[in-house]
Amino acid sequence: MTRLTRIIRHSLAALLCAATPASLAGAQTTGADALRAKIKSYSSVHDAEIVRELSNFLAIPNLASDRANIQRNVDLLIRMMSARGITARALESPSGGPPAVYGELTSPGASRTVVFYAHYDGQPVDTARWTTPPWQPVLRDKTIEAGGRVIPIPSSPGAMQGEWRLYGRSASDDKAPIVAMLAAIDALRAAGVSPSVNLKFFFEGEEEAGSGHLRELLERNADVLKADAWLFGDGPIHQSRRQQIVFGARGVMGVNLTVYGPARGLHSGHYGNWAPNPVTMIANLVASMRNDDGRILIKHYYDDVTPIGAAEKRAIAEIPSIDSALRAELALGATESRNAPLMERIALPALNLRGIRGGNVNELSSNTIPTEATASIDFRLVPKQTPEHVRKLVEAHLAAQGYFVVDHTPTAAERVAHARVVKATWEPGYAASRVPLDAPLSRATLRAVQDALGGPVVALPMLGGSLPLSTFESVLHTPLIVLPIVNHDNSQHSDNENLRMQNLFDGVLVYAGVLAKLGTYWRPVL
Amino acid sequence: MTRLTRIIRHSLAALLCAATPASLAGAQTTGADALRAKIKSYSSVHDAEIVRELSNFLAIPNLASDRANIQRNVDLLIRMMSARGITARALESPSGGPPAVYGELTSPGASRTVVFYAHYDGQPVDTARWTTPPWQPVLRDKTIEAGGRVIPIPSSPGAMQGEWRLYGRSASDDKAPIVAMLAAIDALRAAGVSPSVNLKFFFEGEEEAGSGHLRELLERNADVLKADAWLFGDGPIHQSRRQQIVFGARGVMGVNLTVYGPARGLHSGHYGNWAPNPVTMIANLVASMRNDDGRILIKHYYDDVTPIGAAEKRAIAEIPSIDSALRAELALGATESRNAPLMERIALPALNLRGIRGGNVNELSSNTIPTEATASIDFRLVPKQTPEHVRKLVEAHLAAQGYFVVDHTPTAAERVAHARVVKATWEPGYAASRVPLDAPLSRATLRAVQDALGGPVVALPMLGGSLPLSTFESVLHTPLIVLPIVNHDNSQHSDNENLRMQNLFDGVLVYAGVLAKLGTYWRPVL
Repeated sequence: MTRLTRIIRHSLAALLCAATPASLAGAQTTGADALRAKIKSYSSVHDAEIVRELSNFLAIPNLASDRANIQRNVDLLIRMMSARGITARALESPSGGPPAVYGELTSPGASRTVVFYAHYDGQPVDTARWTTPPWQPVLRDKTIEAGGRVIPIPSSPGAMQGEWRLYGRSASDDKAPIVAMLAAIDALRAAGVSPSVNLKFFFEGEEEAGSGHLRELLERNADVLKADAWLFGDGPIHQSRRQQIVFGARGVMGVNLTVYGPARGLHSGHYGNWAPNPVTMIANLVASMRNDDGRILIKHYYDDVTPIGAAEKRAIAEIPSIDSALRAELALGATESRNAPLMERIALPALNLRGIRGGNVNELSSNTIPTEATASIDFRLVPKQTPEHVRKLVEAHLAAQGYFVVDHTPTAAERVAHARVVKATWEPGYAASRVPLDAPLSRATLRAVQDALGGPVVALPMLGGSLPLSTFESVLHTPLIVLPIVNHDNSQHSDNENLRMQNLFDGVLVYAGVLAKLGTYWRPVL
Repeated sequence: MTRLTRIIRHSLAALLCAATPASLAGAQTTGADALRAKIKSYSSVHDAEIVRELSNFLAIPNLASDRANIQRNVDLLIRMMSARGITARALESPSGGPPAVYGELTSPGASRTVVFYAHYDGQPVDTARWTTPPWQPVLRDKTIEAGGRVIPIPSSPGAMQGEWRLYGRSASDDKAPIVAMLAAIDALRAAGVSPSVNLKFFFEGEEEAGSGHLRELLERNADVLKADAWLFGDGPIHQSRRQQIVFGARGVMGVNLTVYGPARGLHSGHYGNWAPNPVTMIANLVASMRNDDGRILIKHYYDDVTPIGAAEKRAIAEIPSIDSALRAELALGATESRNAPLMERIALPALNLRGIRGGNVNELSSNTIPTEATASIDFRLVPKQTPEHVRKLVEAHLAAQGYFVVDHTPTAAERVAHARVVKATWEPGYAASRVPLDAPLSRATLRAVQDALGGPVVALPMLGGSLPLSTFESVLHTPLIVLPIVNHDNSQHSDNENLRMQNLFDGVLVYAGVLAKLGTYWRPVL
């Protein structure tokens, strides 16, 4: 097929689409059905091979701070990409961050270029809480909660079942999308279909550590990364198990707050009620910042927050409600703010307590006034909130509670000089981002995904979770869309993270369909 | 000396005391000085031997729940006592508690019997926080904070220095008083002085675990334990390093409160602001119970609390203030309730946070909503408060905060049935106790101790810490006085617990003096 023929066909399709959407839908379905059957067949024959490639990838520890293993991840990724004819290399961070992995795969005749994003690093692990070690991936025939047993990866093809789960750190977040995209390229090739877009790859190595070196990497490689759009393979699909396309994401930032009591642990009987108790202090501080219903009590916190608009509310209303089912699954008698809908709740600014520690509890507790206590908080930001401003508001709040705010462990002199001292250790963060649902790219992506699956798709105006979209936007000025594939019940960020096999194979289908059709459907509105 | 001569001499002394206290003080001083010199000389010659006996005793782990090691403590204690001619044996708990160790040492001609109490069990340890392991005692030439190095116990006598410290769990709380009392008996014998009272010994094995089987042990052995008074060797002396006699102690009880979030850890972005966060819940719960100034906010909590009386206030006013020095030592910019005096603060009811735990902080934190969070609390009770009533008030408070209160880990069904569930795990506790400062026993003890040391003594109406005095009183109806010997800065209950050597040898002096003179001075008011 020549480039000219293709352009004509595309233009016709766009005209047809604008003129007679119903008849077009019928016409497209036939071709889409055929491609879907071919990709499914490929995945079935190669199922064990795909899972084994992911499992090997998961076996390499991937904390952003663990540079030796980060390098092993980079090396393997480059080998995996090269095996598909992708020109791949590391993009080194000049200031010492983990490298990103970059790749290119041009498609003859394609006019648009899309960058596929995923991250190969993972969240920290509390190994003691994992049933099997986080970096020793195992396949189970059910979830652990349902009594799933460890089973081998089948040696013959076609034996993999959709409800089986692969357990390991980053099984879902975020190595699965990388493997699914590579398998989609293999499957398309087997089907004899050329991608409709040129592909670039950008695999980040410190997303879970706050993307502190991302801006610098993007700025240094802005030319190399030039493209018409970015597609993000991160986050889970909808809790109803429907495929989801996300047009924005909340920003995120984090802080650890430590308050101080006596310089050494004191007997609570002989010094209690006299020596300040840091556990009480941290509890009162947390209570002063957020009530049990998620309302943030920090002064001026909502001043620069715009409530979600009518278009977003409509899109949200069409999303199947899974609140009651989730409450039962999670053993929750009620959810915050009198059972307000999940989809509305995650469109709000949020202050989440990741943890709190001071002294000891249960068997280890002793009648002591502890020396210090720490609360760990993450903030989710909505459009218009900036990390800088949130930090200012929080520190003003700490000061208003009578605290002297420091960014280091306070000296004895500092502690004696102030009635209350708090150490605030901020983590790098970034703002929220959102792209219009009716942009040509948005419409083309939605259509390609609908074709790929032959079923309904959830269009989410903004993800509750965070992706460093604003950083990409502000450096590269390129529209971004999130196309997640993993199951919602994946224990992402927590212990026993896992991937549902059906999601992996559906992911191959979605990515193959998008590669095959995105360039075709992506026309400016006529 | 015959019994008759002794009685006459005692009666004369009592008459003299009532008639001409000043001249008597002069007359007694001479004898007291001589005895003091003899006891000091004994301690100096036997210093290494005394410290070695304590060190061997500390080397046996002594958690009340660790039955194998508790038995090893019991066996060693009986050997240590038998070596002094004390008839010693274990008093077994029929319901499975750790045994107490009992002993008798009659003194020819003594008419009064005193039971000496101490406990051989210790607080739980967080081994990772100890500089050297808790049950591997070491001697240091200074405190760890002052850079103290580990040194051997000297091989030649008289080399021990007062500021040296012995580190190990229970070095101060509460094995030191046991060894000091046994050394006092040896020292008196060497000085050729017969104790003025018959002695009984009761060494408890679960004081730090809440004395849950104490009442039963006392009831079963009430006949054996018949006596005229109990002397308690527990708690620290005054922070000014002055010897202290304590005429009462606050009661104590403890509870662990656990609240529940989602059944599995959830991504804070996708579920935050919707799924209840147990860390926020526990922080708000703690904040609802106690403000930063130690004021307990539980309804009706102060209804049955009598403020301290005029006599107690006078006694407190005479105690040297160490507040400013303590604040500097502990790196505290301020203490609770606008620097209110320590001695007044510890006469109040107290709610102390021993610890708080939920999720993770700092390097281990991840953007997760944790599944549960726990706060550990101890309560200090003043006279008229009972553990039963405090428990009722606390549980009513939990219910008023919207919590369904259970005493077990809630089932999924219980969690789904209630918006908020709290597990309250109560530890055994006991009420406060106080004896009059002007009782004959109180006056005699004060005088014997003043004689023993030849210097001023602090008379404390009530200890901030707790001793199960009320249990003894209610079962045995015998007056109780607390005669502590260990240093206040001993890190009792916390990591790096230690004993200052000067306190050990002063303790021998105090106990020897009391044994020599208590029976002599102890006369009813004429």
